[in-house]
Amino acid sequence: MAEQSYDPNDFLPTAFQQIDTATGRSTTNALKASRLKLSLTTKLKPVPSPDSEDLLAHRVCTDHMIVACWTTQHGWDDPEMVPFAPISLSPTASVLHYSTSCFEGLKVHRGFDDKLRLFRPEYNCARMVASARRVCLPEFNPEELLSLIKKLCEVDGPKWLPKGRHGESLYIRPTLIGSDSSLGFQVPGEALLVILLSYWPASTGPSKGLRLPCSDEDAVRSWPGGTGSAKISGNYAPSLPMQGEARRRGFDQVLWLFGSEGYITEAGSANFFTIWRNYEGKLQLVTPPLTDHLILAGVTRQSILDLAMERFVETARSNYGCEPLEVLEIMLTVSDLQNASRDGSLLSAFVVGTACFMQPVVHVQYGEAGINIPEESVPHVSMMRQWMKDIMFGYEENTWACEVTDE
Amino acid sequence: MAEQSYDPNDFLPTAFQQIDTATGRSTTNALKASRLKLSLTTKLKPVPSPDSEDLLAHRVCTDHMIVACWTTQHGWDDPEMVPFAPISLSPTASVLHYSTSCFEGLKVHRGFDDKLRLFRPEYNCARMVASARRVCLPEFNPEELLSLIKKLCEVDGPKWLPKGRHGESLYIRPTLIGSDSSLGFQVPGEALLVILLSYWPASTGPSKGLRLPCSDEDAVRSWPGGTGSAKISGNYAPSLPMQGEARRRGFDQVLWLFGSEGYITEAGSANFFTIWRNYEGKLQLVTPPLTDHLILAGVTRQSILDLAMERFVETARSNYGCEPLEVLEIMLTVSDLQNASRDGSLLSAFVVGTACFMQPVVHVQYGEAGINIPEESVPHVSMMRQWMKDIMFGYEENTWACEVTDE
Repeated sequence: MAEQSYDPNDFLPTAFQQIDTATGRSTTNALKASRLKLSLTTKLKPVPSPDSEDLLAHRVCTDHMIVACWTTQHGWDDPEMVPFAPISLSPTASVLHYSTSCFEGLKVHRGFDDKLRLFRPEYNCARMVASARRVCLPEFNPEELLSLIKKLCEVDGPKWLPKGRHGESLYIRPTLIGSDSSLGFQVPGEALLVILLSYWPASTGPSKGLRLPCSDEDAVRSWPGGTGSAKISGNYAPSLPMQGEARRRGFDQVLWLFGSEGYITEAGSANFFTIWRNYEGKLQLVTPPLTDHLILAGVTRQSILDLAMERFVETARSNYGCEPLEVLEIMLTVSDLQNASRDGSLLSAFVVGTACFMQPVVHVQYGEAGINIPEESVPHVSMMRQWMKDIMFGYEENTWACEVTDE
Repeated sequence: MAEQSYDPNDFLPTAFQQIDTATGRSTTNALKASRLKLSLTTKLKPVPSPDSEDLLAHRVCTDHMIVACWTTQHGWDDPEMVPFAPISLSPTASVLHYSTSCFEGLKVHRGFDDKLRLFRPEYNCARMVASARRVCLPEFNPEELLSLIKKLCEVDGPKWLPKGRHGESLYIRPTLIGSDSSLGFQVPGEALLVILLSYWPASTGPSKGLRLPCSDEDAVRSWPGGTGSAKISGNYAPSLPMQGEARRRGFDQVLWLFGSEGYITEAGSANFFTIWRNYEGKLQLVTPPLTDHLILAGVTRQSILDLAMERFVETARSNYGCEPLEVLEIMLTVSDLQNASRDGSLLSAFVVGTACFMQPVVHVQYGEAGINIPEESVPHVSMMRQWMKDIMFGYEENTWACEVTDE
């Protein structure tokens, strides 16, 4: 497997528009947030109660959504903010048959100071362009997507995440689908961008530790040269049978392994971290590297790495009164975990993602062998969790927070 | 990689309904073709001319489609034949985000005797259940799907494939999608079965030989433990960039290789065959085996194997006046093809599938090396092509043909 270094610029599109080589001018329309048309609803929906069944099932979206159509001939139409409603698709639409679809997931947070903030949204918007490219969907300037996301939060934020609801969030889901009605399998000539805001159940206290069974060799989530690093729809459905089996057996999610060596890749749809002490007694934060397209380059993953590098390597003791960490992006196997558990050097494991945030892992089941993992026997994890929340909710000023102005 | 023998019964579902363990009775409704409701259109569409752009782009469906809804609570609603029209989906529908979708492709043929015939449709219907299971979509009795397909052909066949159009076909596309509106990634609690009939452009004479570049290691279609053997939507979109690049370079489709050894798996979305002479001088028909979920178990692939086994092994000379063939399902590499080409023992290569039927391959590009392949230097391929057509169009009576009664 070839090594592949990580560079956020990998996500940046090289071109958003078709260029006429003779004139050097674009021949089709680019996506332009400044051209957003507002067609707001006159029938506002009731906000469901916090224990509503629909809310807990993630079935409640806010009053509006943004849609933008694209065709090969004309490029992007003007985006439009419309009442949230079902969409109409030809039964032959490309997305329904060939999975021409990608998406993103991010959150908007209501800060302690009543301001709305996104967390590193440029990262999601750039990744969405990279995902679109992986399935031949149209490209766009990620900054335009970000502007559209902000506009939707501005309009629906005040009602669905009112001031005073400090520490709560809405979930933002931009999706791009191939809407071309040709049954022939080909690059879609028509596409539809939809941006939704989903009403997210408020967190109900500290999360319990996760119990994860390892995937077996008959259920491999991703492969070198495959699509595991892209946030495309096709990566998801195939993991459902194994996930269902895990739940039936009383587990929470699947720990996806790769190869006969049992390399750890992801847990559920989240990135995996562990903290252990190496043979020299050094404390290490370890997560699998972004090689070979095996795992998704998560925003939370990158943020944990960035925070740990910035605060726990040089200045852990002086600034934070705790033991320094080495930060490593290396392939690790479930046997490594097992060995560390046996000799008592396994100190913590956790998964991170936008939806799940940061959840401790307390047990990994590997065939007949159970690996028990101490819950936060080092202070670093809870410190990082707190730092992340501080940035999201405005207690710490940081360039990662992106303010949204809602009146 | 574990060996895995092929058994058509692998496709057969073990259960189609939820069973109440106390009473032993089903708790939800099974799919029942006998309960089909007809809501036929009063506005029949014009049949487009044979050179219509929409027709050539596979955008024309017939007047009707069959739809059936499923929910976890109630099972299958009564299926309904309705006018072909756009469908309405929540923008949060599972299929749009998580690719919970599978489909089939088969054809209905107008025979020389004016009868309509399907070709081994039981195979497609059973495979669709297996594909549904792979992405946690609801199961059904494949015989009920077959009955529904026949009903649609009975209603729309007379107009869209009228008597007298001997040797022509319509394309049938059953699709099953997760329509659940929960944004949470989970087994869909609602699904929609849609059966379409697509007006297929008439074949325009003998097909030209295909030119195929090999996939590179950065674009892997399928892998052991993956989903390459299931007809699920997620398998398709990721191959679009490589397919697009192939077209831009003047090639037709991609020859998908697996592993550093360069094992041949599929070509485009079709199965691959070659005929060569081995070191002992024996004539061999070779296709990759159905191991490790790497390739789709195609109906045409199986039919070619069955016909060759039945007619070219023992009785080739006595009944058909040609040299006997050995029939092998073995892993073959592109280097094997290259070596056979160098020493003159490579005699034919072709791809097979429902949409493309049987097309010769005349060139394979492997990095800098071009492999030229003689076009049908043995009579076996055109004989098999003719036998297949004879069965499809009624010249040969065969249990593979399944008659549809249209008035």
